[in-house]
Parts: sequence; structure tokens; C-alpha cells
Amino acid sequence: MAQKPSIPKGTRDFGPVEMARRNYIFSTISDVFHLFGYAQIETPAMENLSTLLGKYGDEGDKLLFKILNSGDAFAGVTPDMLENSNAVAMKVCEKGLRYDLTVPFARFVVQHQNDIHFPFKRYQIQPVWRADRPQKGRYREFYQCDVDVVGSQSLLYELELVQIVDLVFAKLGINVCIKINNRKLLAGLAEVAGAADKMVDITVAIDKIDKIGLDAVKEELREKGLSEEAIAVIEPVLLLQGDNEAKIEQMSRILASSEVGMKGIAEIRELFSLIVSAGILQKVELDLSLARGLNYYTGAIFEVKALDYEIGSICGGGRYDDLTGIFGLKNVSGVGISFGADRIYDVLLGLDKYPAALGSAPDVLFANMGREAVNYVMPVCAALRERGFSVVVFPDESKLGKQFDYATRSGIPFISINADSEAAAGTVNLKNLAEGKQQTFAKDDVDAMVAFLRQ
Amino acid sequence: MAQKPSIPKGTRDFGPVEMARRNYIFSTISDVFHLFGYAQIETPAMENLSTLLGKYGDEGDKLLFKILNSGDAFAGVTPDMLENSNAVAMKVCEKGLRYDLTVPFARFVVQHQNDIHFPFKRYQIQPVWRADRPQKGRYREFYQCDVDVVGSQSLLYELELVQIVDLVFAKLGINVCIKINNRKLLAGLAEVAGAADKMVDITVAIDKIDKIGLDAVKEELREKGLSEEAIAVIEPVLLLQGDNEAKIEQMSRILASSEVGMKGIAEIRELFSLIVSAGILQKVELDLSLARGLNYYTGAIFEVKALDYEIGSICGGGRYDDLTGIFGLKNVSGVGISFGADRIYDVLLGLDKYPAALGSAPDVLFANMGREAVNYVMPVCAALRERGFSVVVFPDESKLGKQFDYATRSGIPFISINADSEAAAGTVNLKNLAEGKQQTFAKDDVDAMVAFLRQ
Repeated sequence: MAQKPSIPKGTRDFGPVEMARRNYIFSTISDVFHLFGYAQIETPAMENLSTLLGKYGDEGDKLLFKILNSGDAFAGVTPDMLENSNAVAMKVCEKGLRYDLTVPFARFVVQHQNDIHFPFKRYQIQPVWRADRPQKGRYREFYQCDVDVVGSQSLLYELELVQIVDLVFAKLGINVCIKINNRKLLAGLAEVAGAADKMVDITVAIDKIDKIGLDAVKEELREKGLSEEAIAVIEPVLLLQGDNEAKIEQMSRILASSEVGMKGIAEIRELFSLIVSAGILQKVELDLSLARGLNYYTGAIFEVKALDYEIGSICGGGRYDDLTGIFGLKNVSGVGISFGADRIYDVLLGLDKYPAALGSAPDVLFANMGREAVNYVMPVCAALRERGFSVVVFPDESKLGKQFDYATRSGIPFISINADSEAAAGTVNLKNLAEGKQQTFAKDDVDAMVAFLRQ
Repeated sequence: MAQKPSIPKGTRDFGPVEMARRNYIFSTISDVFHLFGYAQIETPAMENLSTLLGKYGDEGDKLLFKILNSGDAFAGVTPDMLENSNAVAMKVCEKGLRYDLTVPFARFVVQHQNDIHFPFKRYQIQPVWRADRPQKGRYREFYQCDVDVVGSQSLLYELELVQIVDLVFAKLGINVCIKINNRKLLAGLAEVAGAADKMVDITVAIDKIDKIGLDAVKEELREKGLSEEAIAVIEPVLLLQGDNEAKIEQMSRILASSEVGMKGIAEIRELFSLIVSAGILQKVELDLSLARGLNYYTGAIFEVKALDYEIGSICGGGRYDDLTGIFGLKNVSGVGISFGADRIYDVLLGLDKYPAALGSAPDVLFANMGREAVNYVMPVCAALRERGFSVVVFPDESKLGKQFDYATRSGIPFISINADSEAAAGTVNLKNLAEGKQQTFAKDDVDAMVAFLRQ
């Protein structure tokens, strides 16, 4: 016998149950995207390597999956080239698998700029590939689910993304905290501390306050080369008290002398004011320690944590001012967020929040009692399908035990067994396998059958 | 300015309009699959090359996209190896992109055989990649849409696939002819003609009868080496008259002495009888010239043609008796069909059969008349979204002309303009841009707004 086949490490098959759950997540999310006017696009799995290289740093370049040119890829490779593996790879590979959805989106916007009406609101749900070392929760193929609007600086879009997060997780039944920061606040803080070049160090230190305490954070700031004067400026930020509004007021006093800082204050004040007006239901929190993608984002930064389940952030994003500049189209500001489908999958599973009726199983199995009996039930099957029920007919005239067994193992909740007597009487019966409840119907009384199936 | 970026040849971006159409096709098809109890699975884009190689013939092997191993792929490549390009490729590539959905499905069934309940009914809608020369209608990345059931020889599944085809194209509004053949009929014909090794030649010749006429077909059979006696046996098949039933009767006389032929007759007679019982609405036709995948299929063969639009087959498939044998699992019979999404896309476009309301555009634009006015309409936006409408707010307090222009260019059918006077009166108005019709509503009378939007 041949060896049992397998799939590449870090990749996954999704069976019917996983797919039903994943489709539930993606359709819930994309339904909300549509309510806010975002339209779906798709880009090819393969991009030119020239599009991808240099966009994710040296480490990212190494993690790109490269595709061997078709035809005789090695025709021009000479023995001396082999000393430089990377040069050979670049000679024999022109294409790579997309690494994320952001760079292909930037490429899409620039390539199709004449056909796009700005502000352009798009979402994209597609797999990406990274040659990372596979480990628990980290895959070489995984889906990203990105929603962005480009071509406007309006803070109403920051609000819209918060509204989308709010509604998505309400629909999924997950309680979350939406954490918000703004890069301009962090830049302003570094500026007033006289350490504009140490913005990232400061943010990382702030992030540790809950874990290691005030003294240790101050010690870390010292180690990073900040002066006592700088630390004295930063200390009040570590001790911020009160609700979001109070925190914003305290920050506005700290940042008063920084132009960029006060621009950040104006933005964050406006966004929180919009959030209050919009009646966001989930918890929303100003979090000065949020440093997500700091080199990339230029304004708002978002991160979403599940409140009732221990896992990393399940959604995040922010405002970027020059997404498309890498492809030569300047001054296109955008803001977007990305939903972490794999983690949301785990949260729903851990909290047992998948809808009960989500199963991939059919609703009704019609037993096979011979060719005549199958003929007899065919119109009933068609009528139930027309009403939206998933209906299967057992393929062979097997023993009833085997047919029951198939229904049970497949998770089919209802079975219908109709033979000569039912045909003679013009009836059809339905049995709820879990409850044992059974009922007989006139063959054409589909309404009554539907009512029974929906009980 | 940087060079405008592009995508690899033979690949495509799908914008909002294309995606809305494609989603319409895929959701129509997959809804029908669900009604018949088929569940979705997905497999990774990358498979081990050992899984893919040798499954599609030499030509197919050449068309596989191979993925360069990550890390130092060329570490073990010595200069002398460069003489054999293929050997180098096999050394530096362990993975390839899937070429179709059939081989990955076979691999899936074998790999997960202990978790699967047979008969296993699955569908799969995913892209595949082929390093073909791109040309009109032929892409290097395209979606396949396959539905199969494995682990049963019941002809009820052949019927089920015909029912699925019937319902899918009814829902899409495409009139089709479902052509059916059976490999056993062709094998039987070759047998009774004393030319069992010439089954393909005979089928190809039969296929030309309408185009080149009886004499030319007979001439072609002679050229292929068939004797006059053999041609005399085949001639009545070229002259088959009447409806499906009549054709089956004529064939049963021709094939009377062939065991495999009469098995084919029994199968085709049973299938057409089931088709009549099931009340299939589309045209169904026995077509002895159907040779699709003849080396692969072992029983029924299906092909679907659009009746009102000139294009190749838009759907096809058949019964295969040893799909999983290549991976060591014997005796798993299956039957399946594949929908040609790209062609169906073109047929719907050519026949203008896409639903009018399919657009990717939002339903309503709320004009931005300043921050207070936006606050005022926010609850209305939320209420309309709760009722399923796609609602957007213009991002800036721009001139009204610009806001109208955005609505028009984006294809948004309704605009709502509310300023101080509306806020004072507690009203909201809605205007149908195409018809110019306008109406004013109490702010909380969402039912009336919904009625107006649905007119």
C-alpha cells in the first residue's frame, strides 16, 4: 500500500465542521462590512516579487514563498552563481505568494487608481503565506480579513471602524475591550520629554507598568538612556487615573507644549466624542501603551482584546498616511483594521458561542425503502429543499439499522421512513431522532412538516 | 515616480463589481449544494509535490507551479547538477500549488479516511494554478467549483448531480442542455465492433457526425483502422433517432452481445428513469459522442451546455471508480461534477441575467452637514443598518454638489440631507436620486423609511 499522503507542515485541511464555523465567522464579519458600505475585492495569490520584496523588512523578505519560473527556470544559471543562493533564487523566481493583504491592496489602489472613486472602502478575506517556523497557533497558510478605507483623513472613518468592531463582536457574542491610542500622543510625549528618538522605548516601557510596577519601568527608561528630567515628564503618564475623558485631560496638560502631541489630543478627543455619540456598546479604552505597528501607523491605533477568554489581540489596525507611496502614489491617507480569524475561531470555541444550528449536517434523511418508495418521496424532498431544508436520500435499500446509523453518525436530526403503507395512505412521517418524537403528515402538507422540523 | 505596479500574467484582480457577481454565482451554487447535503471543505493552496506529480500526465507535471524551499534552497546544489534542470527543480522545490481540486480531494479522503463517514458528500470552491500559456478565457489562476460524493455506487447520486445542475441553472436563469453518456456504452460498442482498443477513436468519430456527415465519419473510422464489419456495427449508432428512450432501446439492441455494454444500458436506463421521476425541468439528452475525460471516468459522463449563449461546456463530470487508489485506498467509487465559474460568469453577463440589485454600492448616503447634523442622524443610520441596509455617511462637510457627485459616481441610489431645520423638526428625509422622488419621515419612523427604500 502506498504511503498515506500528508500536507506541507504549517498548512491545514478544513473539514465540514471547521468550514461551517469559519464561514459563520467570515459571513458575520462581511455582512457588517457591507452594512457600512465596504465592498469586497480579491487579488491574485501570486504577486510579482518586485511588488513584495522590501516591504516587510529583511526578515519578511526571507519569509516570502517564492515560485519557480515555469519553463526551464535554470537555463541561465551558471555554476559560479551557486555561491550566492539569494541571487540564484532571484534569477529563477519572479513571483511570490502574498505575505499579507496590505501590500497587494496598496498595489491594487495604485494600479487601478483611475477606476477607483475615493474614498475607496474595501474589504478582503483571503489566505496569506509565510515561511515561518510553524508552531501552535502559527501557520504557514492562514486567512486575513482586512477592512480599509483610503483617500480620506476624516475621523468619521476611525469611528466607523470602531462601530464595525462593536457590531461584529456583538453579533458573534464576544465581549471585548477596544483599546485606542494615537501615535501622535506618543510622538508628542517623546518630544516633551526631550527624547524624540526614543518614542518606541518609552511606549514599550509604559506597556510594562501593570506587570513590573513604577520603579522597574523608571529603571528601564534609565537603561534606555533617558534623563531624570525626561522620566519626570513621563511619570505622570504612568500614573494616569480616571476614565477616558479624564485621561485625555491629563495628557493634554502633559503634552501642552508639543504641536504634534496636541494634534493627537485633538484627534483622540474628537474620536472619543464621536464614540460617545454613536453609542458604542462594547468597552472602549484609551491605552497609551498600545504600540502596535508604530513604525507604520501615523494616527489612531486600535487593538481589540476578548474580555472573557485569554488570548492575544483578536483584531487591530490604525491610520496610515502613506500606504501607496511605495508604489508612487503619494498623499493617500487610509485607516483600516484586520480581524484575526484563527483567534476568533478559538475564542468562539472556548466560550462555546457557535450557534447550535451551525452544523454542516443535513436536516432530514429520507430512508431508502426501495425504488418505488424513493419515487414516492421525491416530490416531498424537492418541496422541503424549496423551503430551504437540506435533504438527503439514503443511497441504497440497506437494512434500516444501517440507515439509522448513518443518520446518527452524520448528525442528521430527522429521519423519514416511508414504504408501501405510507404510499397507499398518501402520507409521509418524520421522526426527531434525539427526542424520539414522530409525526405523520399528508404528503402535500409541507407547511406542517416545516413547522415540525422547526420546533 | 515609481513604475506603476502590475500583476503576473494570467492572473486577475477582482474589483467590487466582479466580486459581487462572482459571489452571486458561488453562493447560488453552494446554497444548492447544501440543500442536497453536501458540505464544504478546503485544502491548502500548497501540496507536497509528491502528491501532485504524475497525476496529470507529463504535460500536467510541466504546468505545476513549484515553490522554492524556504531557507537556503540551493545549499546542496552542485555545479554538475545544473545540466539537469528538472533534477535541480526537484531538489530545491518540495511543494507545488494545487493544479485542480480532484487530486487534493483524493488526498484528503485517504488522509482523513478514519474521520469520514461514507458516503462522503463534499464540495470545494477554491482557486487552482496552472503555468499554462495565458490567452483569452484561460488564466493561470482560476477558481474551480467541484461537488462530489465518494463511497457509494448508487445511481441515486448520478440523479442527485443532475438535480443539482437543474436547480443551479434554474436559479441562475440559464437554459441548459444536460448531456449524459456512459463510458460502458462506448466500451461495449467498441467490443461489439471487435475493436475494443479503439474506443476513443470511435467516440471522436461519432462526435463529428453533425459537422462532417456520415460518409466522412465512416472514412475516418476506416483511416483509424476499423474494418468494414466494425463500421457496419457502428453505423446504426451514427443514425440513432428519436427521444432518449428510443435511443436507449436502439443501443440495447446494438450492444446485446456485450456484457459491459448491457451494464451500461442498465445504468443509463435506470438513470433516465430516475430523471423522469424527479421531474427535471431542463433539457436532458443522451449523447453517445460525449467523450469527456474518457480515460478517467468509468460510468456516467455529464456535460452541460448553455442553450442561449455560444460558449464551451459550463459544467461537467462523471463517475470514477478509483479516485483514491493513487493514494493507496482502493474501491472507493465516486461521482462528481465541476462548475465552470468563469464561463458561467460570461454567460450571465452575455444574457444580462445578473439580478439588478446585485450592485456592490451602498443603499443610502447620509450627507455630512457638519458635526451636529452627523450626530443627529447616527441613530437613524444604525436603525437602517439593523434592518439590513448598507448606509454610509459622507466623511467631510463638503459642498453638497460634491456629496451628490460621490453618490452618483458610486451608484448609491438614495441620499439623505439633514441639517438644523430637520433636527429642529425631528425629521429625516430621503431622496431617490434616479427618480427624484423625495419624502420626509419622523426620525424614529424607521418602518416608513424602509418601505420607501424598498419601493
